[in-house]
Amino acid sequence: MDRPRLLIINPNSDPDMTVQIQKTAEDYLQGRAALTVWSNPDAPRFIETYADIAAAGPGLLSLVNTAAGGYRAIILACHYDPGLAALKEVSSCPVIGIGEASLRIAVLLGHRFSLLTTDLHSIPLHQEIVNRYGLQHLCASIRAPQAGEKDLPEKQKYHRLAQESCTQDKAEVLVLGCAGLCGLDKYLQAEFDRPVLDGIVCALMLAEGMAGYGGLQADKPRKSI
Amino acid sequence: MDRPRLLIINPNSDPDMTVQIQKTAEDYLQGRAALTVWSNPDAPRFIETYADIAAAGPGLLSLVNTAAGGYRAIILACHYDPGLAALKEVSSCPVIGIGEASLRIAVLLGHRFSLLTTDLHSIPLHQEIVNRYGLQHLCASIRAPQAGEKDLPEKQKYHRLAQESCTQDKAEVLVLGCAGLCGLDKYLQAEFDRPVLDGIVCALMLAEGMAGYGGLQADKPRKSI
Amino acid sequence: MDRPRLLIINPNSDPDMTVQIQKTAEDYLQGRAALTVWSNPDAPRFIETYADIAAAGPGLLSLVNTAAGGYRAIILACHYDPGLAALKEVSSCPVIGIGEASLRIAVLLGHRFSLLTTDLHSIPLHQEIVNRYGLQHLCASIRAPQAGEKDLPEKQKYHRLAQESCTQDKAEVLVLGCAGLCGLDKYLQAEFDRPVLDGIVCALMLAEGMAGYGGLQADKPRKSI
Amino acid sequence: MDRPRLLIINPNSDPDMTVQIQKTAEDYLQGRAALTVWSNPDAPRFIETYADIAAAGPGLLSLVNTAAGGYRAIILACHYDPGLAALKEVSSCPVIGIGEASLRIAVLLGHRFSLLTTDLHSIPLHQEIVNRYGLQHLCASIRAPQAGEKDLPEKQKYHRLAQESCTQDKAEVLVLGCAGLCGLDKYLQAEFDRPVLDGIVCALMLAEGMAGYGGLQADKPRKSI
Amino acid sequence: MDRPRLLIINPNSDPDMTVQIQKTAEDYLQGRAALTVWSNPDAPRFIETYADIAAAGPGLLSLVNTAAGGYRAIILACHYDPGLAALKEVSSCPVIGIGEASLRIAVLLGHRFSLLTTDLHSIPLHQEIVNRYGLQHLCASIRAPQAGEKDLPEKQKYHRLAQESCTQDKAEVLVLGCAGLCGLDKYLQAEFDRPVLDGIVCALMLAEGMAGYGGLQADKPRKSI
Amino acid sequence: MDRPRLLIINPNSDPDMTVQIQKTAEDYLQGRAALTVWSNPDAPRFIETYADIAAAGPGLLSLVNTAAGGYRAIILACHYDPGLAALKEVSSCPVIGIGEASLRIAVLLGHRFSLLTTDLHSIPLHQEIVNRYGLQHLCASIRAPQAGEKDLPEKQKYHRLAQESCTQDKAEVLVLGCAGLCGLDKYLQAEFDRPVLDGIVCALMLAEGMAGYGGLQADKPRKSI
Repeated sequence: MDRPRLLIINPNSDPDMTVQIQKTAEDYLQGRAALTVWSNPDAPRFIETYADIAAAGPGLLSLVNTAAGGYRAIILACHYDPGLAALKEVSSCPVIGIGEASLRIAVLLGHRFSLLTTDLHSIPLHQEIVNRYGLQHLCASIRAPQAGEKDLPEKQKYHRLAQESCTQDKAEVLVLGCAGLCGLDKYLQAEFDRPVLDGIVCALMLAEGMAGYGGLQADKPRKSI
Repeated sequence: MDRPRLLIINPNSDPDMTVQIQKTAEDYLQGRAALTVWSNPDAPRFIETYADIAAAGPGLLSLVNTAAGGYRAIILACHYDPGLAALKEVSSCPVIGIGEASLRIAVLLGHRFSLLTTDLHSIPLHQEIVNRYGLQHLCASIRAPQAGEKDLPEKQKYHRLAQESCTQDKAEVLVLGCAGLCGLDKYLQAEFDRPVLDGIVCALMLAEGMAGYGGLQADKPRKSI
Repeated sequence: MDRPRLLIINPNSDPDMTVQIQKTAEDYLQGRAALTVWSNPDAPRFIETYADIAAAGPGLLSLVNTAAGGYRAIILACHYDPGLAALKEVSSCPVIGIGEASLRIAVLLGHRFSLLTTDLHSIPLHQEIVNRYGLQHLCASIRAPQAGEKDLPEKQKYHRLAQESCTQDKAEVLVLGCAGLCGLDKYLQAEFDRPVLDGIVCALMLAEGMAGYGGLQADKPRKSI
Repeated sequence: MDRPRLLIINPNSDPDMTVQIQKTAEDYLQGRAALTVWSNPDAPRFIETYADIAAAGPGLLSLVNTAAGGYRAIILACHYDPGLAALKEVSSCPVIGIGEASLRIAVLLGHRFSLLTTDLHSIPLHQEIVNRYGLQHLCASIRAPQAGEKDLPEKQKYHRLAQESCTQDKAEVLVLGCAGLCGLDKYLQAEFDRPVLDGIVCALMLAEGMAGYGGLQADKPRKSI
Repeated sequence: MDRPRLLIINPNSDPDMTVQIQKTAEDYLQGRAALTVWSNPDAPRFIETYADIAAAGPGLLSLVNTAAGGYRAIILACHYDPGLAALKEVSSCPVIGIGEASLRIAVLLGHRFSLLTTDLHSIPLHQEIVNRYGLQHLCASIRAPQAGEKDLPEKQKYHRLAQESCTQDKAEVLVLGCAGLCGLDKYLQAEFDRPVLDGIVCALMLAEGMAGYGGLQADKPRKSI
Repeated sequence: MDRPRLLIINPNSDPDMTVQIQKTAEDYLQGRAALTVWSNPDAPRFIETYADIAAAGPGLLSLVNTAAGGYRAIILACHYDPGLAALKEVSSCPVIGIGEASLRIAVLLGHRFSLLTTDLHSIPLHQEIVNRYGLQHLCASIRAPQAGEKDLPEKQKYHRLAQESCTQDKAEVLVLGCAGLCGLDKYLQAEFDRPVLDGIVCALMLAEGMAGYGGLQADKPRKSI
């Protein structure tokens, strides 16, 4: 089989994050797939609010339309899964959100998960997404650094959050709730001896698998009306 | 008190529907409010899919930003409540979706409601919205005309749906699931002797009430980060 | 249109609370409706328990029967919504409980609400009502003053509860969980810059709206068997 | 141990039903308990609506207060469990509703139950009670005879409903949803070879058990405030 | 009526626990039933994990098959209800798990229960069982002694847990979550004046009741395929 | 990277099904992994009941213990996921049930899925599993051939079920609910142009992905106590 062509779309316009996403994906894929990574130039620099999600939507639709027919699976690389239902609707191949992928894989690996994210103000939006996927009863906690911890080293900040999630909240699995946290998974896994999931990797697992499974790619979008 | 200034935004770009919405609103308001009705020129003509919802988003954000400070409440006049969370986030006055308003008022008026809509293909999207508001256990049914009934007179089509909702599904309240069905409420109420709710009217009830209640309008959006 | 005739029933027999309810309602209505306020002379002085709710029932049924045909909407002015299903059943016009009205409007205005009430022993009953309306996942907290705080000034007590609800529980909306707390809404709104809802006002919004909407008043009760 | 004193309260005022309840209870108890059966003289003749439930309340409170200290357990013999929370609150011994008892025992005996009741118009109220106890996902169906079947022999009517519940709805357990259906349990069990539960018997099982278990009777009501 | 023959199966192989279970049962039964108590010799000494539950399964099936036709009801005396669905399937008489029995009776007696158990590591498994029965919203807490408290007197350890459950978690009913805690019910009831439920007793209540109710015993297992 | 070693355990003792499972897996894997397939010699020939699940448990535990350390992931190849929680507990690598894998992937690919299975009597057990994973609101239907259709050609039988699932139940994704149905996925996908998921393939997607993701394999079981 040829290497499958996979597309990752970073739904925001931050070039640094796009680079970081690409690196995480290549580390995991080890050359098994032909990878393309796009950012969404018309979107806000970061996606942090419902308004950012709405603002990013048309650019995402346009990118998925541009991609039509060229990829075996598309990954949407923001943990809020912005516009995911719409993108699935217009795509002829599977579209996999890193939020949905990591949450659904987390509950396969343990009874309770905690989600670690970057900012206190993101917690309600993450909560809404956990609810949307019907996983709230399996969510041990959603934790983020305190406002005053901004300048602490990243590992130190997330070590504390992971510690509290494991001991106080009894999480068996940790989920990194932002594409920008990639890299922390290996560190925290070593420290806490339990699965720590990066959303990009989780989505790639499913994308590679779906690419190899006949019938998940169609000639045209299946839900168009 | 001066007449409150209310804004209705039709999230699609169909001018006929905008006219129809304005007429329904004026009939209900009887001059009690100063009404403005906008359509969303950059949006699809009709909003029928998740992709349409995503496409309509930036235009809606821009309209709500333009409206800033000028109105006591804003009504979003599509039963799918497209982008509602984002619009609430950027607005300094309440934003009321006709889907949310009519569903929450329906469950105040009876134990079970049915939702009547225009097309079979809309049913899954309506179902998703009923679920999102946590009202699925109170939803007796969501019904739409059959494909072959397109050319039947409107009253005849919806009379049958209402009949089935009342007798087979035991609905105590009917909700018209599309801004384009306005006008049928009075007819169906007379026929079936139970509440039949138009979303525009339901949202206006709340908008007028909130306009008169101090403290629901802020100086700037409350959820901006 | 003539001013609609609205009836508020205070389900307990405390005359002071009846006066206070009337004042709150008149402040909000500004003469837009012809208002009648009744208390329930055969009921307990306060409604604090399930037994009080049961004791108040026949008097409420009798008051609603007496009101038959004379009003466009009836408001039940106790946050526990005592006997609400029964009153809706025997009434030919809408009956609106202040508990149901304020909770359903709260979730329209924000993602999470907290309910402030008068006594620790009321919390389980409020919780039961939040559950009954299917809103538990949107309820950030239910808070009441500690036993030892009885003699503190009212504003001071509820300022602390509101503070904790906003910061610790991340409530975006506050609901006053007792008809006797009316007046605090404006004070707490000013202090915390977010919606603070009085149940009387919420129910009046809906009552006025329904009064103006044809078809919600019937010739006879719709659910009689 | 002395025979425990048990009290059954028929919450309506129909003397025939009181007699029938007493007979069912005595058949089951075989003299193991000292049984008292009261009706509720101030209540409606039958309890069929929310308004009937509200009307029966004060009489029930008064009966439970009269019973104070004299019984080891009290059974409330109407499948709608009218005023049950209030009666538990004022009683110093357990109060067991036949609705709650039979539904909670039904789900112990099989994966899905159907509830058979007397009238189509009772179905929504039964549904509300199944929901209230959080058992809706285990309820295969709620069935009642058609309007035109009134004069059919009772066994014939309920045989058909049981048949449909077992084959179409895949119920593993049947619950008789009215104190007035007692006696049908043995007949339907023999016909369909699966548990058929009479609410009076289910409540008596629990009442006898609780009577024999120290500590479930208190000196005074435990939830009084 | 002859004394009914009841069988209790201790699903583990610990002889001391079997003796303790028998004693608790005899204290409650006061000779009203002919009691047999078996342990499960092929099972692990204690059942503390999902793997223990799986390991105990075939022995339990074999014991229930051996018992066929000889008993009016069978009680499974481990709070995790190991293999309960399978045992119900192969048995011609009711099989009652002490977990299911005590939890379903707990919610009949109060609005919120707490479960007290022996070890912190048991909490997730208990939580899973509470969820399986759909009772999570009524569960105030699940509490166990801290690791360092092993050598404290039993009463002292559970007094503290009960105290916290009643005051902090507002539990109205306490459930002892392990067959090995029998005896504490009377002590804690006296201390905290609210129902404290032993699972063995709860299951026996139902077993005695079902034994006396015709039709719950069949000629052969009802769910065999 | 070396080819990862993967183990599939057929939890029953039927050699034909083991062969069929191996063939399906090899077709999908195309040599990318070193595959071992074991059956469970001490188990029943087929797993169709809760009792079969219990009977298969110790053999499965023993197989997973035997496998310790030798594989990157283990797949449990029965749609009922027998003993899955126990196997995860004793394994140092991920254990993936084909039921859980296919259901969680199904809901990533569409809004509603239908599950096709082999026998009417399996439906309640499948329903229980769908509920256990919290996916009941996304399950359009569970369908099986009628008793009288046994001798029809397999494709014909499942074509009809798929047809009904797509048109009547509005399923967007179909899941084959038995390891024995492998092969039908390609046929039904071609016929109905929507994803049709084989559980073996779904589990292999995740197994391959997890095998390539550092940190999901441990030195010893993580949940042992």
